[in-house]
Amino acid sequence: MQLDPLLQQLMQSLRCLPGVGAKTAQRMAFHLLERDRNGAFQLAECLAEAIDKVGHCSVCRTLSEADVCQVCSNPGRDSALLCVVETPADVIAVEQATGYRGLYFVLNGRLSPLDGMGPEEIGMDLLKARLQSGDVNELILATNPTVEGEATAHYISDLAKQSQVKVTRIAHGVPLGGELEYLDGGTLSHAFVGRTEL
Amino acid sequence: MQLDPLLQQLMQSLRCLPGVGAKTAQRMAFHLLERDRNGAFQLAECLAEAIDKVGHCSVCRTLSEADVCQVCSNPGRDSALLCVVETPADVIAVEQATGYRGLYFVLNGRLSPLDGMGPEEIGMDLLKARLQSGDVNELILATNPTVEGEATAHYISDLAKQSQVKVTRIAHGVPLGGELEYLDGGTLSHAFVGRTEL
Repeated sequence: MQLDPLLQQLMQSLRCLPGVGAKTAQRMAFHLLERDRNGAFQLAECLAEAIDKVGHCSVCRTLSEADVCQVCSNPGRDSALLCVVETPADVIAVEQATGYRGLYFVLNGRLSPLDGMGPEEIGMDLLKARLQSGDVNELILATNPTVEGEATAHYISDLAKQSQVKVTRIAHGVPLGGELEYLDGGTLSHAFVGRTEL
Repeated sequence: MQLDPLLQQLMQSLRCLPGVGAKTAQRMAFHLLERDRNGAFQLAECLAEAIDKVGHCSVCRTLSEADVCQVCSNPGRDSALLCVVETPADVIAVEQATGYRGLYFVLNGRLSPLDGMGPEEIGMDLLKARLQSGDVNELILATNPTVEGEATAHYISDLAKQSQVKVTRIAHGVPLGGELEYLDGGTLSHAFVGRTEL
């Protein structure tokens, strides 16, 4: 038996969601059509509207409906602090966990020449102009501690030094609640090298 | 920081998908908007089209674009055999795993008075008419071996006996590749009661 073409199409298009394979897509499609047509309708509407209206902030490059996002347009934030992160999700993580009151710059990626991600793709022109404007006193590098994230951090720190801006990197080491015994060697050696005086 | 309303709406509406909570919905929303706007657009279109055009087969009640589904309208299938299943996904599972060449009847649920699922909601009028038409020689009950599924099977077998139609139930017992040691007691005792002669 062949499935109806519309059902097949729906299952195929659900697979564009991260972590959704053939079996999950089938379950989702049947769930929506059998039990939650209202929800499915809502989802279709919201998707279409979000694709149409959500773009990138012209200042920090995060996802935003308005031309300038809520953080960048908030006069209560400290514009002398600029935190560089890889994705809009990282902005949310920092906002939720820390009391950080400065601004952000979102790379929307990381330097990775093999994937076609060069300095232009991660908005280095915009960042350079911002560093040279003299508004920024400290640039906080919060890219991920992966090979590409570290390379990106190095690249940006060079850029900041050219503009005489102070650069810091968020600390890497033993996570809270972690146990030394089960920690990977890279993190542990990092924690030793980066030890601070008490 | 508050998320933009469109992003919030999108995350909320993604949660109508089964197994998707707040964190996964956020990941999905960012993934779609940052990296797969084409896929998201396709998904929105397919959803809207499927909600609009996919209804239920007027003969077997499975999900179908046409008034009569592909299985029911296939003259090569044996119309003397009728297999009762709970959901359209069960039809696919039976089709993929077995060589069954008969027809199906899809309950789109199971008897569960507390959830408002009575005989009418699971299409008993339609099934009764079909049993009384005299076309069906054997009714195969393939509802799930849950409390509701068993109750539904009992109810339908009474119905079939009233119409003098032979009723069978698919076998329940030790699954292939399973180990007795780790099997639940209910299944094991079922397997003993339902033993067959070699």
